[in-house]
Amino acid sequence: MTDLLKPNERMDELHRNGYRIIQNPQKFCFGMDAVLLSGFIRVKEQETVLDLGTGTGIIPILLEAKTDGAHFTGLEIQPESADMARRSVTLNHLENKVSIVTGDIKDASNLFGASSFDVVTANPPYMIDSHGMSSPSQAKAIARHEILCTLDDVLEQAYRLLKPQGLFFMVHRPFRLAEIMSKMVAAGLEPKRMQLVYPYVNKEPNMVLLEGLKQGKSRLAVEKPLIVYQAPGIYTEEIYTIYGY
Amino acid sequence: MTDLLKPNERMDELHRNGYRIIQNPQKFCFGMDAVLLSGFIRVKEQETVLDLGTGTGIIPILLEAKTDGAHFTGLEIQPESADMARRSVTLNHLENKVSIVTGDIKDASNLFGASSFDVVTANPPYMIDSHGMSSPSQAKAIARHEILCTLDDVLEQAYRLLKPQGLFFMVHRPFRLAEIMSKMVAAGLEPKRMQLVYPYVNKEPNMVLLEGLKQGKSRLAVEKPLIVYQAPGIYTEEIYTIYGY
Repeated sequence: MTDLLKPNERMDELHRNGYRIIQNPQKFCFGMDAVLLSGFIRVKEQETVLDLGTGTGIIPILLEAKTDGAHFTGLEIQPESADMARRSVTLNHLENKVSIVTGDIKDASNLFGASSFDVVTANPPYMIDSHGMSSPSQAKAIARHEILCTLDDVLEQAYRLLKPQGLFFMVHRPFRLAEIMSKMVAAGLEPKRMQLVYPYVNKEPNMVLLEGLKQGKSRLAVEKPLIVYQAPGIYTEEIYTIYGY
Repeated sequence: MTDLLKPNERMDELHRNGYRIIQNPQKFCFGMDAVLLSGFIRVKEQETVLDLGTGTGIIPILLEAKTDGAHFTGLEIQPESADMARRSVTLNHLENKVSIVTGDIKDASNLFGASSFDVVTANPPYMIDSHGMSSPSQAKAIARHEILCTLDDVLEQAYRLLKPQGLFFMVHRPFRLAEIMSKMVAAGLEPKRMQLVYPYVNKEPNMVLLEGLKQGKSRLAVEKPLIVYQAPGIYTEEIYTIYGY
């Protein structure tokens, strides 16, 4: 197995089906946002899923473990990341269930065809342009800042890629919530479910989980707060459950 | 003082400056939403405030007690409610600080003139049209359902009534949040601050408090969760503080 690893890479346990994932800490490691998104996403039996900007492939691999979906595709623009994600697919013997495609989100509906997925997911860059830009590595910068794709690109492509009544799932930052809601409504991905993630019960939220329904009617279910820590260093029961510990 | 009361009316303590308010339980009594909104609103010294659809006058009267604003106006379409609110103003000797005007929200910017307030507030009807309509009284129905004015009317008038960089504050229901955000952005009242009110720490929120800035830039601060009960029948400290107990 270790011949799947390149220099500076490591394997991390996913606590699901014995799956592991390859990461390069000098480039970009998945965060809690990807894990919480994978716990928020609903995939029904036999559905097909596309993850836009999949990075290490964490979301399709976790969804394969957690749901009864038929097939999971991860689209990734950075060839090195896509290659690493493919090796994680091989490592977990998921070649028949998970595909990693190298390509640009902005071109996704041409690559895969319109109305071709039941579910589209995204953990997109949170920061506008080079705002607060400090990542020394190109891979991290692309994952965190809207350098190669914007929120508008993600929403436009998700709408095209989804079948009628298909579902879009995204994790993002609360400071952009008004823009996100406004643009989801305008893009035809009506927000139907939302959960705010609060690090502590008495702190401001630092993530928002969203579900949009293609061509849905206006009515949002806001879920109970998702609280991460019950005390410093100690997760709440809910977080341990999502992580699978 | 009791000659200020009409049949079926009662006086309730407001736990602020010794103020009391006149209400008719057969018509409409203010709820926790009005109190939480009054705790969320920020009014600076010498600012002028207009409350759209003021009902009993609860919001201008509480704001007079809680802030250093110069003057507070409540607009109310129902003559009986406006009369009752005026009697509460008299009861508390606030004739120089609080005015109650009888009139239609849809006509507000004509009544008061454009760009005439620093702050506009609203606790508007939550329900669309006659959805879930069950209020036996006309006064309750008008307060709860979008019979006489819609969210669009409130936002359009608030924008016109506010001075440049003026602030709009509203309490509403989370199930309409996507629509609210989208319409606030479109109306030029950019959402800048939001707080969700959760009845319990592990329950879905049932109110949302919003602050919009006229012609503001896009960036939302989502506040820590406001949790109402720590146990059945026992408010959290934060709620007791807002109520002034």
